[in-house]
Amino acid sequence: MYSFKNDYSEGAHPKILQGLIETNLVQEAGYGEDSFTLQAIDLIKEKMENTDVDIHLLSGGTQTNLTAISAFLRPHEAAIAPASGHIFVHETGAIEATGHKVVTIDTEDGKLTPAYIQQVLDEHTDEHMVKPKLVYISNSTEIGSIYQKSELQELKSFCANHNLLLFLDGARLGSALCADNNDLQLSDLPNLVDAFYIGGTKNGALLGEALVIVREDLKADFRYHIKQKGALLAKGRLLGIQFLELFRDDLFFELAEHANKMAGLLREGLQKENIEFLIDSPTNQIFPILPNERIQKLQKNYAFIVWSKFDAERSTIRLVTSWATKEEAVHQFLKDIKA
Amino acid sequence: MYSFKNDYSEGAHPKILQGLIETNLVQEAGYGEDSFTLQAIDLIKEKMENTDVDIHLLSGGTQTNLTAISAFLRPHEAAIAPASGHIFVHETGAIEATGHKVVTIDTEDGKLTPAYIQQVLDEHTDEHMVKPKLVYISNSTEIGSIYQKSELQELKSFCANHNLLLFLDGARLGSALCADNNDLQLSDLPNLVDAFYIGGTKNGALLGEALVIVREDLKADFRYHIKQKGALLAKGRLLGIQFLELFRDDLFFELAEHANKMAGLLREGLQKENIEFLIDSPTNQIFPILPNERIQKLQKNYAFIVWSKFDAERSTIRLVTSWATKEEAVHQFLKDIKA
Amino acid sequence: MYSFKNDYSEGAHPKILQGLIETNLVQEAGYGEDSFTLQAIDLIKEKMENTDVDIHLLSGGTQTNLTAISAFLRPHEAAIAPASGHIFVHETGAIEATGHKVVTIDTEDGKLTPAYIQQVLDEHTDEHMVKPKLVYISNSTEIGSIYQKSELQELKSFCANHNLLLFLDGARLGSALCADNNDLQLSDLPNLVDAFYIGGTKNGALLGEALVIVREDLKADFRYHIKQKGALLAKGRLLGIQFLELFRDDLFFELAEHANKMAGLLREGLQKENIEFLIDSPTNQIFPILPNERIQKLQKNYAFIVWSKFDAERSTIRLVTSWATKEEAVHQFLKDIKA
Amino acid sequence: MYSFKNDYSEGAHPKILQGLIETNLVQEAGYGEDSFTLQAIDLIKEKMENTDVDIHLLSGGTQTNLTAISAFLRPHEAAIAPASGHIFVHETGAIEATGHKVVTIDTEDGKLTPAYIQQVLDEHTDEHMVKPKLVYISNSTEIGSIYQKSELQELKSFCANHNLLLFLDGARLGSALCADNNDLQLSDLPNLVDAFYIGGTKNGALLGEALVIVREDLKADFRYHIKQKGALLAKGRLLGIQFLELFRDDLFFELAEHANKMAGLLREGLQKENIEFLIDSPTNQIFPILPNERIQKLQKNYAFIVWSKFDAERSTIRLVTSWATKEEAVHQFLKDIKA
Repeated sequence: MYSFKNDYSEGAHPKILQGLIETNLVQEAGYGEDSFTLQAIDLIKEKMENTDVDIHLLSGGTQTNLTAISAFLRPHEAAIAPASGHIFVHETGAIEATGHKVVTIDTEDGKLTPAYIQQVLDEHTDEHMVKPKLVYISNSTEIGSIYQKSELQELKSFCANHNLLLFLDGARLGSALCADNNDLQLSDLPNLVDAFYIGGTKNGALLGEALVIVREDLKADFRYHIKQKGALLAKGRLLGIQFLELFRDDLFFELAEHANKMAGLLREGLQKENIEFLIDSPTNQIFPILPNERIQKLQKNYAFIVWSKFDAERSTIRLVTSWATKEEAVHQFLKDIKA
Repeated sequence: MYSFKNDYSEGAHPKILQGLIETNLVQEAGYGEDSFTLQAIDLIKEKMENTDVDIHLLSGGTQTNLTAISAFLRPHEAAIAPASGHIFVHETGAIEATGHKVVTIDTEDGKLTPAYIQQVLDEHTDEHMVKPKLVYISNSTEIGSIYQKSELQELKSFCANHNLLLFLDGARLGSALCADNNDLQLSDLPNLVDAFYIGGTKNGALLGEALVIVREDLKADFRYHIKQKGALLAKGRLLGIQFLELFRDDLFFELAEHANKMAGLLREGLQKENIEFLIDSPTNQIFPILPNERIQKLQKNYAFIVWSKFDAERSTIRLVTSWATKEEAVHQFLKDIKA
Repeated sequence: MYSFKNDYSEGAHPKILQGLIETNLVQEAGYGEDSFTLQAIDLIKEKMENTDVDIHLLSGGTQTNLTAISAFLRPHEAAIAPASGHIFVHETGAIEATGHKVVTIDTEDGKLTPAYIQQVLDEHTDEHMVKPKLVYISNSTEIGSIYQKSELQELKSFCANHNLLLFLDGARLGSALCADNNDLQLSDLPNLVDAFYIGGTKNGALLGEALVIVREDLKADFRYHIKQKGALLAKGRLLGIQFLELFRDDLFFELAEHANKMAGLLREGLQKENIEFLIDSPTNQIFPILPNERIQKLQKNYAFIVWSKFDAERSTIRLVTSWATKEEAVHQFLKDIKA
Repeated sequence: MYSFKNDYSEGAHPKILQGLIETNLVQEAGYGEDSFTLQAIDLIKEKMENTDVDIHLLSGGTQTNLTAISAFLRPHEAAIAPASGHIFVHETGAIEATGHKVVTIDTEDGKLTPAYIQQVLDEHTDEHMVKPKLVYISNSTEIGSIYQKSELQELKSFCANHNLLLFLDGARLGSALCADNNDLQLSDLPNLVDAFYIGGTKNGALLGEALVIVREDLKADFRYHIKQKGALLAKGRLLGIQFLELFRDDLFFELAEHANKMAGLLREGLQKENIEFLIDSPTNQIFPILPNERIQKLQKNYAFIVWSKFDAERSTIRLVTSWATKEEAVHQFLKDIKA
């Protein structure tokens, strides 16, 4: 049984484990004030060619989303998200649990546009409704699509004009930045959003997300929020060491490229078999549409998620590749598809 | 510079890192449903000779406290804690952030008794005040003291009679259970409290606390709460593998014993120098009272916390030992004290 | 300028003011423990032929909804509501501010059915999503429609089978119970829902909603929740006296009948002019569709809300009548429509 | 049985009821946008000789405290209060329910000073603890004492220097401003605190507190918070009309003077009998110390609260007078004391 279920089925890239071993007995300060974390933060700033941002290392996506969004908003303010957004669908109401409504918009491709946001603003006109304040987007999105630079520029400009915060969930940012048709660079992001995070968990780390706060007025006292939400690890070094390894020699991008390459092989192989896709995704999640019968056969040897019913006879499945996906497993899968 | 600042200055016990390496490429389910976590849970139940409890693995103490306490209480219910309790002092209002007041009592030794709790109950008589519902205790306490079995029995009985929940913060449970005058066993705990956790972070793990829920009506839907609080790690295996290593061959107790032994050496060495202590602590935190001048000299070579002013010329310091404390460092410290 | 804007444009029915005056200098206990409140509660129980329910008097609809729903739910549980539901649209995220997500369903007529709820249950399958627990309905709904007894029976039975709570927002319950085609009686409600409230504010009181808690396990400690949410009036008598007046001689029903009668006159008069309606509403809110030009003319002499655009040339307006609506104003409005 | 239990045992001053009757059928806008509310706000601003403040009318003290404090604070910020403060003792954890810790200080007289606050600041040094941000004081205090102008000036200056907000709970502000040794005027308050409220409920209104927000950065979007907390009355006129009556001809001060006068008569009468007081209170709450036996006799004809045990034979009782207290009842009480 080989799993294409998600991008967190394995442990961590060996270099990361190696980093943990080598530093293991060095005594360090706790709670993210260790030298590894400080170095990792400096390194990421360097890679982004921006030393003005604040960076904090947290454990996971939901934790980062809830800590940041609740810190950024006042009680009456709400987040705007696509209806497919992770904060709306798959975080057990974590944002609402901090007191904030998530207002959603149905989209085709999991991406927001100024027009969509304008709709929400038009409907929220007075104090009997929440005040939409933070725009939540993901890159890559929950269905594998990515934002072009121009799209983010438009969003940024719209948000600035409407006094909205733009927050980017980068749980799969690596895969987005390494996609074939991507024209964004990591160093563009501080100019395009108010805050975002760089996902480690789904790109080769044991755990870890690097939250980047760009906007000045969102920075104050952020460590209080991390602590209050139970997100300040006593051994913060665990996060620092991993991000050091991920960015020291661009391992972060290397791993994302591998994941994308594996997804690309799958995509091309499936296309050769005239298999259609639910959405044209250039990242490490792809959504082929297969006859139910064939899906059942595949499930004997492969683990993956059946995403949605497509028609009476076909369903969409989700195949996810990762830094650890083996090329031979991909080839075998394609062989089995043909059979 | 050698640090006696805390018990989380180093990484993890080498066996734990070895466990991570050996299992690294095994594909596993996410979110704590991996086979390592399931095995670890079974193993801990076995060690506790109790298969009726529910066990969940979380990342850190504050996270475990806030997730459990907010899951256990209704909105108007409050926790009762000693004024020195971690949830009151050092969690940035994490419990209050979930909506619950922490009612405190000043104690001598960081421990609650039925008499103390009765005082709180006497003062909270109607719906204009919160309803005290959960009794929060720590073992070992924040100042190193421990509960005897009979003390917990009295608390348990009092709580049962007054419809109160008894919750034990075991961030340093290992040290407590391995203390010289301790008469508690891990297997006693499910009979003595309604929920508690076994601290891994401060006893040799990179991170990790095992929350044990004993009381039946506190178990339902607990994974929802973990997820909602951002505490469900995608790679839950990271916690499972560590607890497997900690409990497979009783490494957990071995490490705590080492920490206690090192603290014992320090304690005895200091006593020989006629140094007094703020409190008689049998665990891995000790609180000697030293002349300010001598403290300053020590600070050149050792990191530790100056806990409180004792009198015009003396202060209390906190020395913490851990699974990783080197015996030669202890001897050197004692030598330096004499000098 | 005459207002058909809402049902809270005037003060209170004169009998209610008279009640306040007559009792004004009687010294009474505070916080809802006065004799008037106790009498009012007994009287309402009597009218409902049910002495097992608990009744609490609160000030307004949003306050009642947020206090009840947050008291009834555990942190991970969510409310299910029609997308037109007041708690979702017009309460500034009050439910979310207490930590709970509101999951919505688009409906035609503002009413939920088992089939709609089943859809939500089908989509919420595990701990990565909130757990739907409370079904929120309004009667009459926000768009004037009402539930038939059989419809509530089906909902009740569905909820019981799926371990869901059924909560009815009765801000306009009077109008619903007095509608022409209504077959529900106040005394039916305790058998059909787990909790509901009887709206006073929109039916002749200065302020006041009577929350009726039917289900045994929702009753405990409810006064704590009222106090915690700032909803326990020091002079609770203000609520007690009003509900006494409303129910002593069935003034509550008399006032609702008047409101409905006035809406009926409007409806029939408009129908005679071949004016269509957005929805067939038998209660005190009606939604005629008028040419934009005519709307503008009417706005010179009448206040009302323009509800929505209907087509290029027409919009829907909302006309609301109340206990205080003057019949001559209705006739004048109909005359002006013709002109 | 005559009650000295509190200052909310009766309804409202007749002029207020008269105001309600006279305006009853005027159609007005809902939700505090009616002309009465607008006039009342203008009138209060005029009385304070300050048109820069924002004023909002709410229903009760707990509601006002929780709405204001939760609107003013970010999630990690806490309130500082005397241990006798209403928000700490008698609001069922309402502030904590909005996510904020209340840090308390034991005081002799229920009043805070810069020295007390400095203590709290000294203890809250980093992100492992909440950040104290808002100083909560009451005038008059919960035990009847009042602030002198110079005391508020010192607090204001200290708060300004330490980036703290100063919030004054004025549930009994009338009584404070009309006390014999008071040197504060209503018009001083906007210069001395960042926000405060003028209590109507305990000074002759049916319900109602006028929240005055002075500091510019606390004003934005405040109506959203009122609505979200369930505190925006549909018939906001009920509050507007009452405050119009209270301030039109200085009825507010007249009523407070009466209450104080009645308390003064009681105080002097008791002093003549050589009865001691727990605290020297110049306002409408006094705290005489009486033999338990005498208390029991008095309880046959008078309702009041037994505040605390004083010694083996004596207890302190609380006597509260109000706008409605009858002078003959006071004389009779004093007569009965002598007997």
